[in-house]
Amino acid sequence: MPESHVEIHLKSRPVGFPKESDFEIVETERPVPEDGQMLVRNIYMSVDPYMRGRMRDVKSYTPPFQLGRVMDGGSLGQVVSSTVAGFSPGDCVLGGQGWRQYYVTDGSGQRKIDGSLAPLPAFLGTLGMPGMTAYVGLLDIGKPQEGETVFVSAAAGAVGSVVGQIAKIHGCRVVGSAGSSTKVEYLIDELGFDDAFNYKEVDMSEALSASCPDGIDIYFENVGGATLEAVLNHMRPFGRIPVCGMIAQYNLEEPAPGPKSLIQVIPRRLTLTGFIVSDSFDRLGEFQSDMSTWISEGRVKSRQTLVEGIEAAPAAFLGLLQGENLGKMLVQISPESLS
Amino acid sequence: MPESHVEIHLKSRPVGFPKESDFEIVETERPVPEDGQMLVRNIYMSVDPYMRGRMRDVKSYTPPFQLGRVMDGGSLGQVVSSTVAGFSPGDCVLGGQGWRQYYVTDGSGQRKIDGSLAPLPAFLGTLGMPGMTAYVGLLDIGKPQEGETVFVSAAAGAVGSVVGQIAKIHGCRVVGSAGSSTKVEYLIDELGFDDAFNYKEVDMSEALSASCPDGIDIYFENVGGATLEAVLNHMRPFGRIPVCGMIAQYNLEEPAPGPKSLIQVIPRRLTLTGFIVSDSFDRLGEFQSDMSTWISEGRVKSRQTLVEGIEAAPAAFLGLLQGENLGKMLVQISPESLS
Repeated sequence: MPESHVEIHLKSRPVGFPKESDFEIVETERPVPEDGQMLVRNIYMSVDPYMRGRMRDVKSYTPPFQLGRVMDGGSLGQVVSSTVAGFSPGDCVLGGQGWRQYYVTDGSGQRKIDGSLAPLPAFLGTLGMPGMTAYVGLLDIGKPQEGETVFVSAAAGAVGSVVGQIAKIHGCRVVGSAGSSTKVEYLIDELGFDDAFNYKEVDMSEALSASCPDGIDIYFENVGGATLEAVLNHMRPFGRIPVCGMIAQYNLEEPAPGPKSLIQVIPRRLTLTGFIVSDSFDRLGEFQSDMSTWISEGRVKSRQTLVEGIEAAPAAFLGLLQGENLGKMLVQISPESLS
Repeated sequence: MPESHVEIHLKSRPVGFPKESDFEIVETERPVPEDGQMLVRNIYMSVDPYMRGRMRDVKSYTPPFQLGRVMDGGSLGQVVSSTVAGFSPGDCVLGGQGWRQYYVTDGSGQRKIDGSLAPLPAFLGTLGMPGMTAYVGLLDIGKPQEGETVFVSAAAGAVGSVVGQIAKIHGCRVVGSAGSSTKVEYLIDELGFDDAFNYKEVDMSEALSASCPDGIDIYFENVGGATLEAVLNHMRPFGRIPVCGMIAQYNLEEPAPGPKSLIQVIPRRLTLTGFIVSDSFDRLGEFQSDMSTWISEGRVKSRQTLVEGIEAAPAAFLGLLQGENLGKMLVQISPESLS
């Protein structure tokens, strides 16, 4: 009798804010590797804001999730059995096959990692896609100069927290916004931000005046909405705005109007640049080298918010959209070691 | 008895769309040059959309006009008398002292021009600030590549008409929007645009689909509003948007919301860059060399809309804001030659 495993399917395309009922927990046959394939047991999977976009049936830079099918996304697992050259049982791999307990692959798109370099969750966080997003967005688009002021929204999240720390390493004054006093304390006390505030409890423009009295040179944009509208009125001449995400827009049934202050790009000579990390994979080597150094030196710290069990993956994703995470939100699908 | 001349003063700061009564035609003493000064008779003055911003009492990249005082702006005149080294009676100068018949200066900020190189109005148009705005915005920010599609709004205006022609010189497919069928015909028949449409008579998104079936690589932004909102949904990946102006916003009593489609900058990896021509004065020599060559080769053509007499300057400005101009809007303050 074949063994079973659990996958999470997209049951219905969410309208507005997603609900647990948009997902289906499906127990089904565990895939069996054929010759030239390997079986991987997932240990961690990532939930990320960009996945909300993939739940819509629109063409974008990643294909939409299919209804009634297992979703995918960042994952880290261990090879159980393998007839793929270069992969042996026990190897840890980054697989991009989240939302399921096991998967079979011929090895394409699988990247072996050295689990002795950092804790495994880091490979989906600071050393993974979110860390690299922060790295290329801040450095290649933001181009921080020593002494400049960097403001980052969603600053306690997987990307924002790394943006702030890299900006500090580059000698910038760093200010962040986040959605709870716990997060604000974390930014200041643990990550070394110069200032931070809870956007839910302030007048955004007053908070920016107080925390960035000389204006903002780089705004690392993760949220859109009222934050972007206020920030544009606080940017310094020739400021740069790497646009990584606009999470405030993702769950709206109708697109919201853009910022009334967009015209400020002219007198202030601002540049807004949207980007996607996958366009910068030529920077992977440099990123990994820099980031692993910074982590080992204690200059980039991280926390994860771990949710236990594949069945909790939909709840983890919904929690992410509501800002329940501190640092990277991960689902632990199985223990790191089965021994 | 001292001679008199006419100046135009800002009487009141316009609320919403400016009115003639916001301006005052003032007959006053003609200034008399002292030793080390010269007297200049204005021949042409420029009215430009950016002047609307200077009628507001807000700090920006140019100082606001002062109530009850003469305004200023692009002007071309002829030296009447001079004790300034390097300036002799009969010399033509670009002076930045518009909205008046005569002015006195010690020569600072005055640039002598060679009126044999081009018709005098060109020095306030294709060879002047609008032409250079088109040049640096398109080339330095837009970075056009052969075969790309360039869309320009306010395409029959002083800047837009030059943008389109430079883009053609660089091997691009060029499409423009304008506000009348006369302008559309001018763009296609006289300036060689590949396509053009009257934005008042089309559904913007349908018009863009029809005229730019493969999408837009560069959008040269002059208007903002509904045009920008539609364009963002038609941009190709890695498209560039030099933001020169947003004339649709200039006369609103309350700032209008930005484009709902702004989030498109992320999946499409777009860059919006606001710019001001005066930041690029290091490019003046190259610009003048290229542009005078293109004009002499017939590759950049231009028309002016001339309004006669200093007293008509407010009406010319209001007409500009309503799109009554084809090409550069100028006020002829005195004849080119008094002989």
